Amino acid sequence: MDWKERIAEAARRVEGHVLRTPVMRTGGFGLDREIDVKLEQLQHTGTFKARGAFNTLLGGPVPQAGIVAASGGNHGAAVAFAAHRLGYPAHIFVPQMAGPSKIALIERTGARLTVVEGEYANAAEAAADYEEASGAMQIHAYDAPATVAGQGTCMAEWEAQGLEADTVLIAVGGGGLIGGALGWLQGRRKVVAVEPVTSCALHAALAAGGPCDVTVSGVAANALGARRIGRICYDLARRHNAQSVLVNDTAITTAQTALWQERRLLVEPAGATALAALMSGAYRPEPGERVAVLLCGANVAPDPLG
Amino acid sequence: MDWKERIAEAARRVEGHVLRTPVMRTGGFGLDREIDVKLEQLQHTGTFKARGAFNTLLGGPVPQAGIVAASGGNHGAAVAFAAHRLGYPAHIFVPQMAGPSKIALIERTGARLTVVEGEYANAAEAAADYEEASGAMQIHAYDAPATVAGQGTCMAEWEAQGLEADTVLIAVGGGGLIGGALGWLQGRRKVVAVEPVTSCALHAALAAGGPCDVTVSGVAANALGARRIGRICYDLARRHNAQSVLVNDTAITTAQTALWQERRLLVEPAGATALAALMSGAYRPEPGERVAVLLCGANVAPDPLG
Repeated sequence: MDWKERIAEAARRVEGHVLRTPVMRTGGFGLDREIDVKLEQLQHTGTFKARGAFNTLLGGPVPQAGIVAASGGNHGAAVAFAAHRLGYPAHIFVPQMAGPSKIALIERTGARLTVVEGEYANAAEAAADYEEASGAMQIHAYDAPATVAGQGTCMAEWEAQGLEADTVLIAVGGGGLIGGALGWLQGRRKVVAVEPVTSCALHAALAAGGPCDVTVSGVAANALGARRIGRICYDLARRHNAQSVLVNDTAITTAQTALWQERRLLVEPAGATALAALMSGAYRPEPGERVAVLLCGANVAPDPLG
Repeated sequence: MDWKERIAEAARRVEGHVLRTPVMRTGGFGLDREIDVKLEQLQHTGTFKARGAFNTLLGGPVPQAGIVAASGGNHGAAVAFAAHRLGYPAHIFVPQMAGPSKIALIERTGARLTVVEGEYANAAEAAADYEEASGAMQIHAYDAPATVAGQGTCMAEWEAQGLEADTVLIAVGGGGLIGGALGWLQGRRKVVAVEPVTSCALHAALAAGGPCDVTVSGVAANALGARRIGRICYDLARRHNAQSVLVNDTAITTAQTALWQERRLLVEPAGATALAALMSGAYRPEPGERVAVLLCGANVAPDPLG
């Protein structure tokens, strides 16, 4: 199936269920040009992941046992939210590293929640066991066609809002968001994948010639710390020549602080990772190149009003 | 001079100096309808007040001694920011109640800063003394034509962005923002003025038949705690029949929490005050009435990344 068509179909499906998030143009951040920003961190449950969750559930059928998901926090919150809105039971597995503010966010949806020792991969194993035992349907966080197509609606929406950029910078964890963007854009704009040095599954896969395991750590690990890049993302990144750049934790927290201090946008480290590539010089645009940055997550810890 | 023309002129003047802040439509907050929201808290220095500051300074001339302003924090930050951008020296007087996060915001601009014991009115006295002694130009926080016209560009911009609302809710302190909105709209939409019970200078003035002193306190006092409503705002509110409603501190902090938890918009209490009128039922729209809420300030304390 053609990705562009699949994403267009997802966009029709999720309309009215997800928010059309705002866009803005802004200077600042010590950059030599204005940038376009999409405030996708204002989406339901604070990340783009509601798009993939709704697309999957609305594409049904959903079994009697409901939904299961493994998550560093954000995907679980999105699945729990979408399941609740659509009237399905949900059981979410998160690793301890998800942290109290993301765990509280999931709890507020009313979903059943299991906190697992370790990192994302451990939660994924527990979720797989539960899936087999219960007959619940698993929504994969990033490497399933319905998930990627749902996340792709973010870029489709941005273009419908009049995006003028030559280049779009997107943070990468497991690759659902950038996979959807690549699938939608089909090479029509340059896409730059930004990963933390300490959680760089796509970068490692591109170097190795295929998805491979990486160790994950760092300030954005609970959102971007996939141990292995999704196959869908990897194939799309290869096909459309996504450029891959890395940023360190200092660059990420510097960008996070700047987004709050200069623009009053409070995002989590993963949400600031794409901007960090510009601010740190990890990605240096050409003179005249029009650049856009996707802000993808707002679930900071500690919760400022928690 | 005609307010609409004055605001249109201000809009041409401040273009490129202030941000075109984004708008969005969202459900939630326990309301029975979607609302339109303007994210003016993303403006330079976290409030709409940069508009009035730039309009005043760009309308110059500015004396050699530079600029002076008294402020509960937000106006001072905006004036300091605009002065710095345009190359003028600025001296800002704030009361202690401005709080550390607003004081730090002003310090970051590089302006000279004096912290005065007491409330806004005390800072205003100190600023007036300095104005007389130094020959610096004072930019009034709300009751000057150039300030009101600058703030009015916010509503002009919102209409240019396709605002469809019948009714706009706006928080009121000294009345600069709502004065500008009333001057621009000229009765074409219903305007609801929302004030804290404990800082209600407009409400008291409308009841008394003219501006009168009120005591100020409460969670939004450093932003909305004007002791007396501006004459410009009062006259415009009377002429265009602004409806006045009051909300208590619990309603304000409930709305502030909901904006963060449901929509990842972090605003200060003053920034949540307009929404509080809807959530608390202080303002009850008619069936089918299309309602818009202006978010006006993001300078929360404590600073989440301070």
